[in-house]
Amino acid sequence: MTEPIARARVRRRGPQGEQVADDLVVVEEPCEIRLQGESVAVVMRTPGHDRELAAGFLFDEGIVAPGDIGTIRSCRDPGVLDPDNVIDVTLVPGAEPRATWQRHFYATSSCGVCGKASIEAVRVHAEPLEDDVRVPAGMLARCMQRLRQEQTWFEATGGLHAAGLFDAAGGLVLVREDVGRHNALDKVIGHCYLHERLPLHGHLLVVSGRSSFEIVQKAWVARIPVVASVSAASSLAVQLAREANMTLAGFVRGQEMVVYTGAERIE
Amino acid sequence: MTEPIARARVRRRGPQGEQVADDLVVVEEPCEIRLQGESVAVVMRTPGHDRELAAGFLFDEGIVAPGDIGTIRSCRDPGVLDPDNVIDVTLVPGAEPRATWQRHFYATSSCGVCGKASIEAVRVHAEPLEDDVRVPAGMLARCMQRLRQEQTWFEATGGLHAAGLFDAAGGLVLVREDVGRHNALDKVIGHCYLHERLPLHGHLLVVSGRSSFEIVQKAWVARIPVVASVSAASSLAVQLAREANMTLAGFVRGQEMVVYTGAERIE
Repeated sequence: MTEPIARARVRRRGPQGEQVADDLVVVEEPCEIRLQGESVAVVMRTPGHDRELAAGFLFDEGIVAPGDIGTIRSCRDPGVLDPDNVIDVTLVPGAEPRATWQRHFYATSSCGVCGKASIEAVRVHAEPLEDDVRVPAGMLARCMQRLRQEQTWFEATGGLHAAGLFDAAGGLVLVREDVGRHNALDKVIGHCYLHERLPLHGHLLVVSGRSSFEIVQKAWVARIPVVASVSAASSLAVQLAREANMTLAGFVRGQEMVVYTGAERIE
Repeated sequence: MTEPIARARVRRRGPQGEQVADDLVVVEEPCEIRLQGESVAVVMRTPGHDRELAAGFLFDEGIVAPGDIGTIRSCRDPGVLDPDNVIDVTLVPGAEPRATWQRHFYATSSCGVCGKASIEAVRVHAEPLEDDVRVPAGMLARCMQRLRQEQTWFEATGGLHAAGLFDAAGGLVLVREDVGRHNALDKVIGHCYLHERLPLHGHLLVVSGRSSFEIVQKAWVARIPVVASVSAASSLAVQLAREANMTLAGFVRGQEMVVYTGAERIE
């Protein structure tokens, strides 16, 4: 099992000159996700929680629904040199993939959509959210603070994104860190998939960094009504959140925030 | 032509309460890159400099070499709804794609794709750098500062990555900003492709955020010997930079920096 953090011999330069030091770096490795023996995607990710990653990715992309997955495990094909980096997913008898992937995805750590066959294929279709959860503004800020406290790998390396899921009372469900922001969210949603907690009505998602189209889309598919980020949202994230009837907030810092859409859910 | 920045009506909350305001958000839109009429990739990008994006992407991925590209323009197929978001690239007569981009999309899984093959599948092969450029540490810090000054869209929206290219004397060649960090670098390299400035011997690349595997790989293909980032590098970025004989520095802030590889180029 590969560790999520590795040691690297570096030279640290500062006002006092240079010294050789051992630094901690976040591990980034490719992970191939296979469904029924077929390659679906190669994702650059931080090792760990790979079953969650695979389940979350396949669910977010509309390829599997709750209950469809039979087994998820490291590849056992003879000849596979690095079985930890190949995740085999099988479906329960009778289940079929819900969507086709005309080409395999190639997801780098910061781009979740490269390689999709057409612009139309970027979208996963979902019904608008009908969720009447109400969230005090102060609670969003506290969730953001809590996320920051839980980013232990980031603390050590400075090199990871994080996604945190909270319930309607502001209680932490879980946090996942990853070199890729989409992977962190896939792992959160995959965890909920594996623990049969989907859909995530009444939940709050808090992400480090920015809100992109992909973040909003994944949250939408998981039915998360409120998404908040440390930093800005993009135009397409705002547009998609509006379409989804999702509450989208950015720049959540202390008492301040910018509410892009769905302000009626924030009290 | 879509603008890179859009206006969004938001609610801004602070200690003094809430007010409706017009905010600026970075535009994020899908862009399909086609080569000889065939779809190669869909990238989520900030509109603008799309010819650079297409040229840089195809070059970085090892699909075209300098001189191969004939024309780059918005798609003119009837029936394409949003021609600005589809970039058609053609090759000069006699040129052929140098690599098949199906490297991203394993044709079959019956060939026994292994973990090693996963890494191989995302690698673009290049010869190690032999570049004896020397860079004063202070110059790297000044380049970083200059990059920050040039991030005008980031200043307005808080939502973009940036990549800046500098010559060996620390002179700015160009900066590109984009919602995706890889796109910003593709645009920088694509600009150099279109202006016949490749390979980029003796140049410095400075990026906002972190250094991932992909950043190092793209810089390597463009033959950039020195790469510096505001924040951390990943394990695979360090490993690849070592293999490339590239100088990789992170956390370049004022007088401080961490040098991961190739410290001999920094004076």
